[in-house]
Amino acid sequence: MSGAVNLAEKFALFSESWTPKIIGVVDDYHVKIARVEGEFVWHAHEDADELFLVVDGRLRLKFRDREDVLLGPGELYVVPKGIEHLPVGEPEAQILMLEKQGTVNTGTAGGERTVAEPEWI
Amino acid sequence: MSGAVNLAEKFALFSESWTPKIIGVVDDYHVKIARVEGEFVWHAHEDADELFLVVDGRLRLKFRDREDVLLGPGELYVVPKGIEHLPVGEPEAQILMLEKQGTVNTGTAGGERTVAEPEWI
Repeated sequence: MSGAVNLAEKFALFSESWTPKIIGVVDDYHVKIARVEGEFVWHAHEDADELFLVVDGRLRLKFRDREDVLLGPGELYVVPKGIEHLPVGEPEAQILMLEKQGTVNTGTAGGERTVAEPEWI
Repeated sequence: MSGAVNLAEKFALFSESWTPKIIGVVDDYHVKIARVEGEFVWHAHEDADELFLVVDGRLRLKFRDREDVLLGPGELYVVPKGIEHLPVGEPEAQILMLEKQGTVNTGTAGGERTVAEPEWI
């Protein structure tokens, strides 16, 4: 129906991993989706909490300071600002994220997987 | 696994409709869930966008100024701030919402279904 955002339809529009796409805006926040596969990079977002919700597959969040969090479909976790984390698709997952606009996927770590300005889909 | 928020487990903790529960915080925003059944009340949130994601069931969003939006599982819609809307469970739904902390469920409409301070579950 007009206006509804269907997650399965959005995921069907791309196949690459670790390239977040924007699917919505809530005030100053972006709703993003991504496919993830294997390890990403250790990073932190100094000034933004980050919500991860698994739509399909399995996502492990590794931390320096706490136990791993393993998420399956219908499970979510909010990584607090400043906390270093390593997202890992086990072996892969479709995830929804919510974070302040301008939050870069690799945080302060940078590197070749950085997507400074995700595209809208 | 420790720390993960499982939506199905959270919905199993309550049965009443139209009483949002907080399940997470992202900066100044609350992640809430609610069961909905039939019509709520027409209302608007003057200064807050509101994200609706259907986890189970079917939710209709009626508007004064645009076509209805009908959401099933895995579908979302963001109601822009200031836009009057009427959420309707058809016949019922489990929904996840994201909105600025302090956003009241009935907006500026008030009334007996107002939950000024949702509980955490």
